[in-house]
Amino acid sequence: MGKVNLRGNHSKEKKTEFSLVRVKSTWKRKLAKKVNKDAVDCVSPAKMYEIITVKDTSWTVVSPIVFTYKVTETRDLLDPNNDTLLLGHITDPQQLEEIKDSNKPLKRFVVVDQEVYEIYGPKLTEYFESNNVLYKVLALPTTEENKSMEVAMTILEEVNNFSLDRRTEPIIAIGGGVCLDIVGLAASLYRRRTPYIRVPTTLLSYIDASVGAKTGVNFANCKNKLGAYIPPTAVFLDLSFIQTLPRRHICNGLAEMLKMALMKHRGLFELLENHGRMLLDTKFQDDKGVFGQSGLQAASQATRIAITTMLEELAPNLWEDDLNRLVDFGHLISPALEMKVLPSLLHGEAVNIDMCYMVYVSQETGLLTVEEKQRIVSCMVGLELPVWHEACTMELIQKSMQDRLKHSGGMVRMPLPVGLGKADIFNNTPYEILHRAYEKWCDELSVSSDSNRDP
Amino acid sequence: MGKVNLRGNHSKEKKTEFSLVRVKSTWKRKLAKKVNKDAVDCVSPAKMYEIITVKDTSWTVVSPIVFTYKVTETRDLLDPNNDTLLLGHITDPQQLEEIKDSNKPLKRFVVVDQEVYEIYGPKLTEYFESNNVLYKVLALPTTEENKSMEVAMTILEEVNNFSLDRRTEPIIAIGGGVCLDIVGLAASLYRRRTPYIRVPTTLLSYIDASVGAKTGVNFANCKNKLGAYIPPTAVFLDLSFIQTLPRRHICNGLAEMLKMALMKHRGLFELLENHGRMLLDTKFQDDKGVFGQSGLQAASQATRIAITTMLEELAPNLWEDDLNRLVDFGHLISPALEMKVLPSLLHGEAVNIDMCYMVYVSQETGLLTVEEKQRIVSCMVGLELPVWHEACTMELIQKSMQDRLKHSGGMVRMPLPVGLGKADIFNNTPYEILHRAYEKWCDELSVSSDSNRDP
Ligand SMILES: NC(=O)c1ccc[n+]([C@@H]2O[C@H](COP(=O)([O-])OP(=O)(O)OC[C@H]3O[C@@H](n4cnc5c(N)ncnc54)[C@H](O)[C@@H]3O)[C@@H](O)[C@H]2O)c1
Ligand SMILES: NC(=O)c1ccc[n+]([C@@H]2O[C@H](COP(=O)([O-])OP(=O)(O)OC[C@H]3O[C@@H](n4cnc5c(N)ncnc54)[C@H](O)[C@@H]3O)[C@@H](O)[C@H]2O)c1
Ligand SMILES: [Zn+2]
Ligand SMILES: [Zn+2]
Repeated sequence: MGKVNLRGNHSKEKKTEFSLVRVKSTWKRKLAKKVNKDAVDCVSPAKMYEIITVKDTSWTVVSPIVFTYKVTETRDLLDPNNDTLLLGHITDPQQLEEIKDSNKPLKRFVVVDQEVYEIYGPKLTEYFESNNVLYKVLALPTTEENKSMEVAMTILEEVNNFSLDRRTEPIIAIGGGVCLDIVGLAASLYRRRTPYIRVPTTLLSYIDASVGAKTGVNFANCKNKLGAYIPPTAVFLDLSFIQTLPRRHICNGLAEMLKMALMKHRGLFELLENHGRMLLDTKFQDDKGVFGQSGLQAASQATRIAITTMLEELAPNLWEDDLNRLVDFGHLISPALEMKVLPSLLHGEAVNIDMCYMVYVSQETGLLTVEEKQRIVSCMVGLELPVWHEACTMELIQKSMQDRLKHSGGMVRMPLPVGLGKADIFNNTPYEILHRAYEKWCDELSVSSDSNRDP
Repeated sequence: MGKVNLRGNHSKEKKTEFSLVRVKSTWKRKLAKKVNKDAVDCVSPAKMYEIITVKDTSWTVVSPIVFTYKVTETRDLLDPNNDTLLLGHITDPQQLEEIKDSNKPLKRFVVVDQEVYEIYGPKLTEYFESNNVLYKVLALPTTEENKSMEVAMTILEEVNNFSLDRRTEPIIAIGGGVCLDIVGLAASLYRRRTPYIRVPTTLLSYIDASVGAKTGVNFANCKNKLGAYIPPTAVFLDLSFIQTLPRRHICNGLAEMLKMALMKHRGLFELLENHGRMLLDTKFQDDKGVFGQSGLQAASQATRIAITTMLEELAPNLWEDDLNRLVDFGHLISPALEMKVLPSLLHGEAVNIDMCYMVYVSQETGLLTVEEKQRIVSCMVGLELPVWHEACTMELIQKSMQDRLKHSGGMVRMPLPVGLGKADIFNNTPYEILHRAYEKWCDELSVSSDSNRDP
């Protein structure tokens, strides 16, 4: 996608480039070189090319679609006085005025994870009630096992019964990555695209599943095999949801945060190294009693760095057309590992095991010193993440590399840390290095993660 | 979409614009005003804006995705010596060379309409056999009643079993608009986007359903309620399929062709006026016996004008973000009419009835002369299209206008011809005009279309 390369079948071909120009309500193609931008109503960024050969005629359309979305870190999202959840996605000040001045009640369809609903249901209902919203809250058990097209269809039936206006009434999803992914897909399908809003309630979805364009459901025993790349209209982040999240799920999110640290941000790495345990203990909350302001400061600093570094990688590659992706770190072996031992490892845990092995590969390649490797492993252990797993065998590693080769245009494109908070992409790591790294990794870490935790 | 309007909640806000710059494998945000495009590796067309207020921090991502697709009119598509179906979508000459030089067999998954398969199945099989392709042909009864997510899922299971490579092995759809729409949706969902190729075999899909980005299935009794805007990689057009199409389905396609003529192209209108009957009789084929070369010439001229005028309107508005669309002509009342009398009217027939009424509205408004109106109606009759229907009542018309108002951002945006082959969009047509036009339309045409045909 993107690069236009116009091949003709014959040397005798006539190639013409057209611009598209609007005159009143009608679009007309005009020879691109003759268009005087100042003299016409509107010139589209789209182009059209015509190639005529003796054999056939073809038209190539090149049409850019601009995706715009907003990620907002806020507080007290469910405070009835905070209108972010209802109006925060609106970017046109005039439209906003009109809505505020009108006394027509707003209408919102909300899908919320069942467990989240059990905790936050009353607050949520109260929020909509006191804002006089016509609402429907659909609480669903959005678990990994239910992450399917069937559940997406259930949501769609309810959306359809609610008869919402697809241009002005975004669908709101509140929950972890599973909920956000399913609802995002359902919304993207409804009337070929209905805006949706993501409100992540797990740490993993706060810093990762929320901020990009991907939606999806599992299919035929494969993770996220069906989906779309349609970003939400807006993402509203409120750290206070994290206070009710089980500790293990906080570790789970920390793994993806550590990924960004290792790939791109030494400062974030050091923050996790020094304050990771505290973040875990305070659940990213403002625990003044113990740490004064520093607890919240570290929490908001960590999430902000994680989000902005993630957005840096996603924004230029929203549809993943570029296969060289640092954010794939930890995601080369982990999908197979996660599926193999399902449900014993959470996503972030599998990712961490993959990352830890890769750190050994980096060190073996000479990209990391032994001390750097050791610091990374200690940080992982500090974050209570598993650093080794017996199901992660050399066979599994090799098979994952082969799969990667196949799906990545014939190159492995393996992201590896090259120092703390820096990384690059490698294609020709020899088998001996992968193997030596594997042996060393097993030698040093194959004692259970539990005993690692308290060395 | 597109226009960025960055609202802050407070007057005290800090707004920063960032560009995204690649340094080796890493994307970094840089203050937009400080980026020196010549000094860096690569600057993304994407942008990121940060707004910090006392209340919250937000990041807006603006990321253009460029869709590129190719529409090729060719001949003898199923001739084993024509490699268009297998390789015509490849635009990179080097990649093409590599494939041609390699002796790895190609792999293709093909979905074909059952009735089309009955006629063209042997030729299709022969084509793949003699080109040494590893193929799977899935013949399905892709009818309007089957145009559902369930059938899309059936296709997806088969695609998954076939284990195709989503980057290099496009899914091929061969059939009418129903087949192309379902397969397009399935492909768009598979691994979040798998390239697909459209081969239309009806006139309607040849000039209309093929050339844009829309895919879809029916849902909850509504046409195309679920879908995506993902264009095919390539569309291969071969008029010879039309020779086996029932006459009524050729009229059906002619209605959409007439739409483009009335909206944008007087020449196409005159061509249909003068040669429409002949096109219908020869089924757009090269019928030398009767008409010499002129038959094919008219056929290829008509299809080319229809396609290029359609592409002119679609390319700048691929995702239908602009609600002012001339291609909506004939599609304001027809969806309700089509559903109301299902299955008695084909899509193009319902469209024609809608267009015919609108022509009366135009004339009543003073945009068309009585003679122009008469010429258009006669042309419709000549194309054997219904020009009136008793189910198209004033109530239905009014209800359709109200629906339109609701789904079109509060404006009717009614395309109307303003002369032959010219049109504009109108928002304030008074009820009396709609009503007077309706009465005149009924007075003049409520005798059955059949008796109209032979006046
Ligand atoms: N779209 C993307 O870019 C992307 C990125 C990463 C991961 N994902 C997907 O995200 C999913 C994993 O997300 P996850 O880790 O958030 O898992 P999850 O959605 O399964 O949530 C984890 C558990 O926490 C519970 N929970 C959620 N919020 C809570 C809260 N505030 N308090 C108490 N309990 C709460 C949930 O009910 C669930 O039991 C995977 O399916 C993965 O594929 C998507
Ligand atoms: N995606 C878009 O932009 C778009 C635009 C317009 C219409 N559509 C959709 O297209 C559908 C209508 O398409 P259609 O009119 O092609 O109908 P269709 O796909 O139902 O085909 C019509 C009939 O012709 C048969 N047929 C097809 N090719 C044949 C051939 N060469 N010889 C003999 N028989 C043949 C089919 O089996 C079917 O019975 C609708 O569902 C409509 O929503 C989509
Ligand atoms: Zn992940
Ligand atoms: Zn149509």
